[in-house]
Amino acid sequence: MAGSSFGNIFRITTWGESHGAAIGVVVDGCPAGLELDEQDIQKFLDRRKPGSSRFTTQRKEADCVEILSGVFEGKTTGTPISMLVRNTSQRSSDYSDIASYYRPGHADYTFDQKYGFRDYRGGGRSSGRETIGRVAAGAVASKLLSELGITVTAYTQAIGDIEISMQHFDLEEARANPTGMPDKEASARAESYLKKCMENLDSAGGVIACKVTNLPAGIGEPVFEKLDANLAKAIMSIGAVKAFEIGDGAKAALANGSSNNDSFRMEGTRVIKTTNHAGGILGGISDGSEIMLKAYFKPTPSIFQEQETVSKDGENISVQIKGRHDPIIVPRAVVVVESMTAVTILDMLLQNMCTRMDHIKKVYL
Amino acid sequence: MAGSSFGNIFRITTWGESHGAAIGVVVDGCPAGLELDEQDIQKFLDRRKPGSSRFTTQRKEADCVEILSGVFEGKTTGTPISMLVRNTSQRSSDYSDIASYYRPGHADYTFDQKYGFRDYRGGGRSSGRETIGRVAAGAVASKLLSELGITVTAYTQAIGDIEISMQHFDLEEARANPTGMPDKEASARAESYLKKCMENLDSAGGVIACKVTNLPAGIGEPVFEKLDANLAKAIMSIGAVKAFEIGDGAKAALANGSSNNDSFRMEGTRVIKTTNHAGGILGGISDGSEIMLKAYFKPTPSIFQEQETVSKDGENISVQIKGRHDPIIVPRAVVVVESMTAVTILDMLLQNMCTRMDHIKKVYL
Amino acid sequence: MAGSSFGNIFRITTWGESHGAAIGVVVDGCPAGLELDEQDIQKFLDRRKPGSSRFTTQRKEADCVEILSGVFEGKTTGTPISMLVRNTSQRSSDYSDIASYYRPGHADYTFDQKYGFRDYRGGGRSSGRETIGRVAAGAVASKLLSELGITVTAYTQAIGDIEISMQHFDLEEARANPTGMPDKEASARAESYLKKCMENLDSAGGVIACKVTNLPAGIGEPVFEKLDANLAKAIMSIGAVKAFEIGDGAKAALANGSSNNDSFRMEGTRVIKTTNHAGGILGGISDGSEIMLKAYFKPTPSIFQEQETVSKDGENISVQIKGRHDPIIVPRAVVVVESMTAVTILDMLLQNMCTRMDHIKKVYL
Amino acid sequence: MAGSSFGNIFRITTWGESHGAAIGVVVDGCPAGLELDEQDIQKFLDRRKPGSSRFTTQRKEADCVEILSGVFEGKTTGTPISMLVRNTSQRSSDYSDIASYYRPGHADYTFDQKYGFRDYRGGGRSSGRETIGRVAAGAVASKLLSELGITVTAYTQAIGDIEISMQHFDLEEARANPTGMPDKEASARAESYLKKCMENLDSAGGVIACKVTNLPAGIGEPVFEKLDANLAKAIMSIGAVKAFEIGDGAKAALANGSSNNDSFRMEGTRVIKTTNHAGGILGGISDGSEIMLKAYFKPTPSIFQEQETVSKDGENISVQIKGRHDPIIVPRAVVVVESMTAVTILDMLLQNMCTRMDHIKKVYL
Repeated sequence: MAGSSFGNIFRITTWGESHGAAIGVVVDGCPAGLELDEQDIQKFLDRRKPGSSRFTTQRKEADCVEILSGVFEGKTTGTPISMLVRNTSQRSSDYSDIASYYRPGHADYTFDQKYGFRDYRGGGRSSGRETIGRVAAGAVASKLLSELGITVTAYTQAIGDIEISMQHFDLEEARANPTGMPDKEASARAESYLKKCMENLDSAGGVIACKVTNLPAGIGEPVFEKLDANLAKAIMSIGAVKAFEIGDGAKAALANGSSNNDSFRMEGTRVIKTTNHAGGILGGISDGSEIMLKAYFKPTPSIFQEQETVSKDGENISVQIKGRHDPIIVPRAVVVVESMTAVTILDMLLQNMCTRMDHIKKVYL
Repeated sequence: MAGSSFGNIFRITTWGESHGAAIGVVVDGCPAGLELDEQDIQKFLDRRKPGSSRFTTQRKEADCVEILSGVFEGKTTGTPISMLVRNTSQRSSDYSDIASYYRPGHADYTFDQKYGFRDYRGGGRSSGRETIGRVAAGAVASKLLSELGITVTAYTQAIGDIEISMQHFDLEEARANPTGMPDKEASARAESYLKKCMENLDSAGGVIACKVTNLPAGIGEPVFEKLDANLAKAIMSIGAVKAFEIGDGAKAALANGSSNNDSFRMEGTRVIKTTNHAGGILGGISDGSEIMLKAYFKPTPSIFQEQETVSKDGENISVQIKGRHDPIIVPRAVVVVESMTAVTILDMLLQNMCTRMDHIKKVYL
Repeated sequence: MAGSSFGNIFRITTWGESHGAAIGVVVDGCPAGLELDEQDIQKFLDRRKPGSSRFTTQRKEADCVEILSGVFEGKTTGTPISMLVRNTSQRSSDYSDIASYYRPGHADYTFDQKYGFRDYRGGGRSSGRETIGRVAAGAVASKLLSELGITVTAYTQAIGDIEISMQHFDLEEARANPTGMPDKEASARAESYLKKCMENLDSAGGVIACKVTNLPAGIGEPVFEKLDANLAKAIMSIGAVKAFEIGDGAKAALANGSSNNDSFRMEGTRVIKTTNHAGGILGGISDGSEIMLKAYFKPTPSIFQEQETVSKDGENISVQIKGRHDPIIVPRAVVVVESMTAVTILDMLLQNMCTRMDHIKKVYL
Repeated sequence: MAGSSFGNIFRITTWGESHGAAIGVVVDGCPAGLELDEQDIQKFLDRRKPGSSRFTTQRKEADCVEILSGVFEGKTTGTPISMLVRNTSQRSSDYSDIASYYRPGHADYTFDQKYGFRDYRGGGRSSGRETIGRVAAGAVASKLLSELGITVTAYTQAIGDIEISMQHFDLEEARANPTGMPDKEASARAESYLKKCMENLDSAGGVIACKVTNLPAGIGEPVFEKLDANLAKAIMSIGAVKAFEIGDGAKAALANGSSNNDSFRMEGTRVIKTTNHAGGILGGISDGSEIMLKAYFKPTPSIFQEQETVSKDGENISVQIKGRHDPIIVPRAVVVVESMTAVTILDMLLQNMCTRMDHIKKVYL
């Protein structure tokens, strides 16, 4: 069934396979009047581009975006924004042997079970290249949010068991180094660890954090369309994510109410919370403090070690996967997490436009 | 915006407030021909009924369900199944003072910010009683899944830092004791801990696990409608859940690919995985092994200790919350997690009906 | 699949069978802060109540509505409004023989083919009583629209070949007489015609018109969510409607561009159209002039004449249908058309809230 | 709000403006295993191509389709099928004066009112070129339906007041002549009429009929997702359609029940209807006989006569529209009606997969 769309009002539909002609996204429901050009999108895409460090796949792709519709005289028109990136560095030959067996930890087996066959070249639709569409859409959402003063910022929180220290937090560092960690010292240790993983023909996992600042209180719908529920879906829909947390996350289960509750206090005429265990969401609705979420990524399943698996013909076999793989996907996934968060926040912000008679009267009377 | 519906094909819409006339759900899209009566629903509702142990609110509610439509001569007709539970034990007086201030950890403040005012009686729509509709729908979904041989089973995995041991796993124990733990010894320790929490006028959190057995491979849609993404949304939409995990969850971020990958092997003519770090899902699609998820619940925000907060009029105040509260919601939430899982699994199973030409030909040719 | 919901933002879900316990609707996505009580709903329901003239079924139903949720202290809260009407005058015995054969012009055969069996009592879910939920929801939508100065008004345009004259247009007349025609003289002729139909054990069809005044320009989304496309779906979803027109409708196909185009002209500082062949919609978007639509109803399929049909067992048989039927459904369907129009207009008005950056800035900055 | 998608399971999303870089569609939810190549699509696109007769715009466009994703080794993979047609013959200069005023009968004014500005080149998103995406998607749907033995066939029923005669019905004729009429003699008369319209610098409207054969009984969901309601939305979403009919349509309102009801009869072991006033749908569900619908198109609003209108600056002006226009859009719209019908029928057919326990057991047990 149709599963390639996300969002209700700001609605994105991605398409494309790793080794097809192109990858793209249609962004429908973007409000008219937002200044937008290809450079806004390209900046985001460049953050997920392969080949930029020794810890990413050596596949060389320019990943140049083309905006095909929905923008006129430098502004969005309110109609669908179609964006496309041509695939240029397909080396299908790398993958020809994959056609005959199921890589452990990959979606080869499940696609075959679901559809009866699959586009095996580079993982087809389950490839990480699918996220190009998400990131292009995320660039649009982020730009719009920034017009309202809202910022969405993701970074690498941990690689393996190496965590950043919030005392050393430095976002520029995160954008410059190959780990995406906003902590120079932690990043250096993580690089050593990754080098060792590569020497062992192995791969690593990690954690990405994302925060949203300046989101007004009141965003998110009760019951099923809770802000945290939609963020969870958005983040868990990224390949390789195995856990999602909001605020204190799993640690909250160990706490008592007296320590976990955030007190409200007046700061001048503004209601604030003195702590933020909740991560900025109460009852599924934003409370005006910072939204804080975490995404836990499993290690890249493609490793160069020999592994046991089965062939399509039902034989037990051993395989060694060739090709070009990232030993860790976390650094390149930072902008994907940021994009999915931005898309979700914007969609929920738009959904909230219609929740009060006074909003409606502001627009129509 | 409309946020009280969940699911695409098997679609549930819940309604009702804690202290309104009634609580209910409309289940639309249930296939015709399923045997169903009120007893099937009541069994599920009884598992979340308050007042059944000293660790749950002393509010007495029979929570008797009435099926108003969609069932004829003992079978579902394919049309909407409307189910209703009357509220009978509203003591609004308990809540009259809540109208004037914001309880820490609750949705009072965020509802007021969103809507301009709120039904403050017993938390209104953000009350735990909202889950009655989910559980009634979950009973229908579970019954249907069981006809296909698929079982969904939730239980308490941990309360505070007390975890069950899988060696002692005993599901009957979980259904009989007040903690919902399938481990008699762990349950006893948890009961002591909860007693201490109550003596301290405090509350506790915990973890609920849920497994799905016998689900065929191939369920879940690539990209945004991944099985794990939808499960994450379903579970995070339950009040008080702060983290969601599939399979090894957060621990996967610490692992290496070589240990985290599950090898495929032949078992006779069947493909199996020798381990299940993935929790039964690869690329968002079920792989035929057991689905395993975890939900982390924060401690009940209602505690009897004095707490700092603000009044609606913008004064810093101290409050002591009265009323009838659960010191922990985990035991009663077990059936809610099970229900939301069942609803999600069934909806995805139905979505998968249309993914292959051969399925379609089976039905129409 | 789930087919009992309508609307994206203002979303209604109806449920219930003719001879089940009750009939109802859940209205989700109604903005908070609208004054609403049961009397607002009852007024609308009374307009479709049976037994009010000799041209309607003699089934006596009070059709008293109960609001079960979503309204607090006289105002909508933004959460689902659940409304219920108990069925009290079921005489299932009238219908017992229907179980064994398929009434011509009814949905008996198609329900059986779709679901394998059906609730045959009074047409079950395909009964006209299903519209109770639509009308209750329409009452909410109409009330909200009237707060914005927008009115929705339906009336009987024709019965058989008897048409109203716009010169005699008198809405109070339409609300008082048994035909719903806003033209006393035409109504009298129609009553004679209907009497004759009844004497012939036959039934009649007719046309309902509906106009929307004061709708701002700009409502309706390009391409698939055009205002007229959604109105068409809304109206064609009412049982027995066989044609839908907007503005000049079918007659436009006979015209030339020079006569069919409506010229724009300035009226002071306001843009107006000097004619309204378009019916208030250009390119699927409202143009600020009156919306005008028409719905064509087939004659009631239940007639007392002997008819040829087949039994469930595959025998050719002749039948004479018993029970209580309207010789025409048009008069009672007027409020149904008005309700579906109001629900659609409101939903599209809310959808339009998010189409421009300046709307969004009005609400959030 | 997002309005460029249609369908629930087989879901199409179109994008693109008349004078942008390209026009396209993403078809999501197409079942895997359907043989498909660009030739299948091109054949459909060629039927709506401009410049093929003197009655169509002289804009020369090859309208060559490129399939960018979702097809592998000649078969659909179950993932989104992205299709793109480059615009090559934009002559924006033709339209530069349109920027300053509102063409009567066009969506210029309503787009400006909705979005604050518009892409005025060639009508932008409201151009007839938007239908390229619909037709490409319709080609896929038609191919799939034909695998199940279901055919969808549209043709011109009338131009102005010249109607075809069913006695002369000849579909090959319709596919070869410039009117799309399956009646050589009527087509000749229509050509004369169109020539006269062009001489008068005027335009004409007409009627397109579409029939669906071999659709099984049981397709269509009760209440809001009725088959006829969805067909109405699909057809009314095509620009310039002002009325929609199913079966006898508006004429049914003049009939009596005794003549309008279709009798059921046994034909061997098969239930048939002896007449088909209903147009193949009862209670919103297909009854196994031929589906028959009609779409009424207004005359092309672009005419070369002088017309009165207003400028963007609020001045009353007279204008003479330049550019390349069709004097009638009906012949080129035939394949659009056929495509939207096919997309709707397929989507409803897929929705029906999940309505019965025995369907589900056929696929999973």
